[in-house]
Order: sequence, then C-alpha cells, then structure tokens
Amino acid sequence: MAVHVALDAMGSDRGLGEMVSGAILALQESDSIEITILGDKDQILAALSRHPKFENIHIIPTTQVIAMEDSPFEAIRRKKDSSIVVAFEKLKQGKFDAVVSPGNSGAVLAAGLKYLGRLKGISRPGIAGLYPTMKGPVVMMDVGANVDCRPQHLYHFGIMASAFFSVMFDKALPRVGLLSIGEEGGKGNSLVRKTHHLLKDSSLHFIGNVEGRDTFQGDVDVIVCDGFVGNVCLKLSEGLAEAIFSMLKDEISKTFKAKMGYLLARDAFAQFRKRVDYAEYGGAPLLGLNGTGIICHGRSNALAIKNGLLVAAELIRKNVNDHIRHLLEVSQQTGDGSEEVRPLSQPGEIA
Amino acid sequence: MAVHVALDAMGSDRGLGEMVSGAILALQESDSIEITILGDKDQILAALSRHPKFENIHIIPTTQVIAMEDSPFEAIRRKKDSSIVVAFEKLKQGKFDAVVSPGNSGAVLAAGLKYLGRLKGISRPGIAGLYPTMKGPVVMMDVGANVDCRPQHLYHFGIMASAFFSVMFDKALPRVGLLSIGEEGGKGNSLVRKTHHLLKDSSLHFIGNVEGRDTFQGDVDVIVCDGFVGNVCLKLSEGLAEAIFSMLKDEISKTFKAKMGYLLARDAFAQFRKRVDYAEYGGAPLLGLNGTGIICHGRSNALAIKNGLLVAAELIRKNVNDHIRHLLEVSQQTGDGSEEVRPLSQPGEIA
Repeated sequence: MAVHVALDAMGSDRGLGEMVSGAILALQESDSIEITILGDKDQILAALSRHPKFENIHIIPTTQVIAMEDSPFEAIRRKKDSSIVVAFEKLKQGKFDAVVSPGNSGAVLAAGLKYLGRLKGISRPGIAGLYPTMKGPVVMMDVGANVDCRPQHLYHFGIMASAFFSVMFDKALPRVGLLSIGEEGGKGNSLVRKTHHLLKDSSLHFIGNVEGRDTFQGDVDVIVCDGFVGNVCLKLSEGLAEAIFSMLKDEISKTFKAKMGYLLARDAFAQFRKRVDYAEYGGAPLLGLNGTGIICHGRSNALAIKNGLLVAAELIRKNVNDHIRHLLEVSQQTGDGSEEVRPLSQPGEIA
Repeated sequence: MAVHVALDAMGSDRGLGEMVSGAILALQESDSIEITILGDKDQILAALSRHPKFENIHIIPTTQVIAMEDSPFEAIRRKKDSSIVVAFEKLKQGKFDAVVSPGNSGAVLAAGLKYLGRLKGISRPGIAGLYPTMKGPVVMMDVGANVDCRPQHLYHFGIMASAFFSVMFDKALPRVGLLSIGEEGGKGNSLVRKTHHLLKDSSLHFIGNVEGRDTFQGDVDVIVCDGFVGNVCLKLSEGLAEAIFSMLKDEISKTFKAKMGYLLARDAFAQFRKRVDYAEYGGAPLLGLNGTGIICHGRSNALAIKNGLLVAAELIRKNVNDHIRHLLEVSQQTGDGSEEVRPLSQPGEIA
C-alpha cells in the first residue's frame, strides 16, 4: 500500500516550483508513494502543468503562509489556514501518514506538538540531523528544537536517534556517542556529565563521549547533544565547508596553472560535493511526536525535497515510532516524561 | 628592552626537539625576545647543540612531566618540579614576563590561577582561540576553560577578547558577536539570552548574535561563547577541515586526469593550507590571569611554537592586561567578580 505524504509547498526560500518538482521526482522514483501538496492552489496547478501528469498527486489549497521570521506559537495560533497548520491538522485526522516541510522549523514543531502530541514516555521531541562523514552517515540529535535541556531529554534523544538510525540503515545496535570536550566520562559540562551516567546504564550501544573532531570520522552512528550545541554545530559545519571552498577557489584562481589543474580535477570536486551535499540526505525528522514530520532545510532544492518525501515514506513503512517505543520499554531508565508536560511555552526554545 | 618568555618544552606531542627549534626560530626572527626553556636539561642541551648558538636563550632544568591525561589539580599539587608548575612559580617571582606551553591546558590554567591569580574584576579566566576566516582572523572565547558559565562570565570573555583583538590587530573597537542559533536577541539558550542584554548595554562594539555560519565570514572580530560550546566548535572545525581534505583527496585519486589536475593546482592547495594553518596563529592566550600565559596546541610544530612565543612577547609589549582593566573600568557592568572566588574546584571544568 502506498504511503501518503503531505508536502508543505509554501515555506521554501527557493519557491513553490522547486517543491513541486521535488514531489514529481519522488513519484518518478517510487510507485508506492502518494503525495498531497498544500499551499496556494493556482501556483501549485501552474507548477504541476509543467510536468507529466501523475495520478498519485493531490492538492489541499491553503491561503496563509507562516514566514521564517514569524514567532512559531503566535503563527500557528493566528494562521489557521496556513499550509503548516492544515498539514498537521489533517495528519491528525488520518488524511495522510506524514508531513514534510521546508518552512519555519519552530512552527512545524509547535504545530506537531499541538495536533499530534508527544510519543508516550518521551519528554521532548527533537530534530535528528543527518551528516555525511568519511565512512557513512551520522545522526546528530537534537539539532535545534530544545535549547535548554536536562539529562533526561538528552537520554531520550539517544533513544530516538538510535531507533531512527536502525530503521534507516538496517543496523540493529547503532553506536551512540555523547558530544563532549574530552573522552573521559568526567569531562564536559554539568548536563553532559549527568547524561553520561544515564546513557552508560541504558540498553543502548553507548560508546562514551565523542569530541567535535570525531563527528566526521564515521566511527559513531548517533551523536547526542542539546539543541543549542547541535544547531551551532550544524551551522558551523555549513559555514566552514562553504568558507573552505571559497578560499580554495580564491587560491586556484590566482594562477593559470592552478586553473588548468582545477579544470582537470573538477569531476572529482563535483563527486565530492555530491558526497557531502545535504540535499542527498533529504531533511531532518522531528522525532518524538505521536506521528511523523520531516523538517527540510529552508534552502532545499527539488532533490532535497524528493529525498525528504522518500525518507518520510521509509519512516512510516518501517514504523520508526514503534522502534522508539520498543527501545524506551527495554531500557531501564524509561521515564514517563510526565515531569515535562510544558509544551514549549518559551519561544526561545525553538531555533 | 627584550621581553623574556618561558617555554615549557615537555608537554608537546611532537617532542622536545620541535619545541627547541621553535625557540630558535623566534630568536632568529626577533632580537627583542629572550627565552628560557624549561624541561629535561640533557635533552634540551642535545637539541640546542643542533642549532647555531644564541645568547638570549637559557635553561631551567625540571625533572617532572605533567601528562595530557593527568588531572590538572592533582598534577600541579603533586608534580612541584614539573615544567608547568616551575614556569608559573618563576613567572610569579618576576624571572620572566610570560609563559608559553603546549602541555595539558587544564594544568596550565590551574597553575596560572594558583601562582598568578585572576585579574581584578574578572570572574573567570578563559582561553581565547584565534581562527582564520575568509577575511581575517576572528577570536573566539572561551574555547575550553569554563564549561558551565553564567552571563557575567561570558560578558567578561567579551571584554577580554576585545582587548586582545585590539592589541593584536590595532583595531580600536572590535566587533563583538554572541554565538547563538538565530540573530534576534530572544534566540538562544537561557545563558545566551541573558548575556545578550549584558553585552548590549556594555561599552563594547556589540553587533548582536552571530551564528555558526558567520564564524568564517570575517564580519565579526570577537565571538563570545561558553567554554563547552567553544571547545566543541574548535574541535569540530579541525575535524571537518581534515575530513574535507581527506574526502577530496580520495575523489582526486580515483582518476588519472584528476590526479594530473591536482599536481597542477597543488601550489594553490598549499597556499590555502598555509592560510588556514593553526600554526600560523601560534597558540591561544589564557586571558584574565594576573600575568600572561599562552596555551599552544598539543600538536604544535616549531612554527606554531615560534608564533606562540612572538604572540606572548607582543601581549607583554602592548600591555594587554592594562587594556582589559581599562575596558572593565569604562564599562557599566564592572562586576568585581567576587561572587566567583571558587578557584576551579571541579576537574570537569577544564578541557
């Protein structure tokens, strides 16, 4: 049976046309996906008319748009007919199985929490970011949903990210590392030192603290951190990669010989860029909701949207939330999360 | 008058010979520096015998070594005749003007605090890391000394790093940014939101929050963060840069054409690597002490040590500590730091 995924077409920096192209690419690649696009009807129809026809595509017209700079809580309260709000409302009603959005990630999280609620036992939903490394992908969680965390939250990020990694890459016991500034358990800030004990006593395959430089070595599958640190790492990595290429280009353009050399080597550069392109990874799942949501980069192109849609379908097909529940159950530290019912009352908590 | 700098020759991953070579390079470059090398006398003499003779070089023999994995507080208490402890003891006695060490940074900080104490008004000394960016250097502080911080500490990091940047790069009002996960003052974790107000009301040239991706753009001179986040960023950047080069090399080696291209472009690669080489920056000053200490990377080569020694001399010559005192005075938030006399009782506080 086809998995039915909703696509919020309104929040992207690259415009609605690119979102629609992403949906078409997903339908071309998989015949077991059905897609509903939410957004401005006329624009969606116009964009669709430039592609071959597909039966598995639907439209839900919406009239409002939540902007990147909108305050998440106010926006989902005030903009009831926005693509993000309607998407989660209809997901709750069972109209589809998952939501994919490149829009305001705080609003996606707030709408997810409001309409779907949290998975039982999970204290805080978070965003799981996928990175390329020298050997394979690594999941970092949280990369921006929770900026002030307690050890229990980080412990749950470890569980959720492990379940996600298992499902996506067919690995029964992903290696879980705790992001810190030294390998010994006593190293790190107060939050990390307390979390270390929780993870050590859990049923996860905890390999101990990892440092920033281990992130890209590929010797760890899941990296646990709070959403402030995770988001800083995410943006630092993007910025550094851009800066390195820009400085390298600068040096190469200084001599004719180097320019010639670059021309010969440029396929290798292109291959490399493909290998580290975020678009290949297709968005970051919002884990811990009683339902499935994927947050795509605001700059997502069609390829990234396609991959986001396919990842959403995969998570549904493989029941990632059942895996999370199972891991919570087998673990000894199964908190019921009840001490943390506060559903994101502080706007500063969302990146 | 020559500035007299002490060099701890025992803590480096690359061995004592490389440290001694660094001292010789510094003496070759500057005739207003005098250097005392602390460490194993026989080894130092053997290393010196391989270089031309200089008058401005001295030896203080020490018999103990603080290892990278030693607990800082225990080590400086137990290893009284280690190069790090003797260096700060003699600095306190006025035998020289500054200490440069590539050893256990926690022990350097602990010894600095024990023998020199804090600058009046500074709540916590911290480590100021210099990064290359697309336009020029940026100072990030703290990069590892204080993992659990209060707003007042971050505020003082801003003051100290500004004074350091002014002195090193002759810029009267360095642009100070606060590392966060969104530009608006309300974005970030609780620590960052509170610090934002302190910096905004200060006499520093505060340009607001900056994000990870701004770090390498060169549009900010000083980036303020806690030592946990700063240390994660430092190691993540190192790891990512290494991973990018390694993956690129991997792609380039796959085809003959690309290999030829690389050979033609390799001078550009070398230029680029020189531009971003940490060794060009020569170590991270430990600011906030009542004296001057420079922490060099454990993997420092002779070039990095030379630059560390010259930076130390520059800080003395330009009275960086007077600049810090001055900035503290003109600022409205001049805390006297007295609420934080706790001199690093927790080992986990040091990276």
